Amino acid sequence: MRYIGRLVSILHRQSQIYFNYALKEYNITSAEYAFLMYLYRQDGLTQEELSSYLYIDKSATHRAIKSLEKKGYVIKAKDDEDKRYNRVYLSAKAKELKDEIRQRVRRWSEYLREGLEPETVNIVSDVLEKMVAKVEKTNLRRLLE
Amino acid sequence: MRYIGRLVSILHRQSQIYFNYALKEYNITSAEYAFLMYLYRQDGLTQEELSSYLYIDKSATHRAIKSLEKKGYVIKAKDDEDKRYNRVYLSAKAKELKDEIRQRVRRWSEYLREGLEPETVNIVSDVLEKMVAKVEKTNLRRLLE
Repeated sequence: MRYIGRLVSILHRQSQIYFNYALKEYNITSAEYAFLMYLYRQDGLTQEELSSYLYIDKSATHRAIKSLEKKGYVIKAKDDEDKRYNRVYLSAKAKELKDEIRQRVRRWSEYLREGLEPETVNIVSDVLEKMVAKVEKTNLRRLLE
Repeated sequence: MRYIGRLVSILHRQSQIYFNYALKEYNITSAEYAFLMYLYRQDGLTQEELSSYLYIDKSATHRAIKSLEKKGYVIKAKDDEDKRYNRVYLSAKAKELKDEIRQRVRRWSEYLREGLEPETVNIVSDVLEKMVAKVEKTNLRRLLE
């Protein structure tokens, strides 16, 4: 039997090698690009929101955002309504490089899809999407009962 | 369009949360379990082999093996034929817990599969397997040309 979990993890780690390579000239690492990609979809999120949307733990999120800030890709600002929260905003530099960076990240998914029938790609995307949604709704504790 | 790369990464990160939870009582983290799982398949590999089979970089491999050694799960020994290489062996404790640990790791893949038609599971496994093999054969540099 082939374990889907194992294949997913190997493919994820392979992608990290690609992202480190593909984004090197932007000084962005595989631990950082996902935050930028999410902010490109929705700017001005809090670190807590980024952490929970991306399933990346709080300390790794903190480190990545700090590093992206230092590199000039994001700017942190206090929330106007609730000063306890830092919101994370894209810098002018990040906005300027948006198309280039997104293209390099998307190239990975395009490459994975290459040579597959569109119908097969649809089945795989559907199943992966359903799995993500299922995990989201599940109390993982229940799996071990 | 849905990006397979993004879905794979999210699902991988969700799995890491599960593994941290499911293996907590064994004091094994999501950064460590994959090495143990690989050694259960083939004991006595070098760190270099583990690193390249699992697509985990050398420094993260080094950290994980060192931690597993400290926790009593693996033993490092010099290669008999080439003293430059450290081989990593399962401890008696690791062997004793083999079935329990593997069962908890495999539970994740079983859970992902639950509710899907066996045929759908086959298609998804096939495609993921082919993607992993394709990446393995590709010079990632070529993707950006």
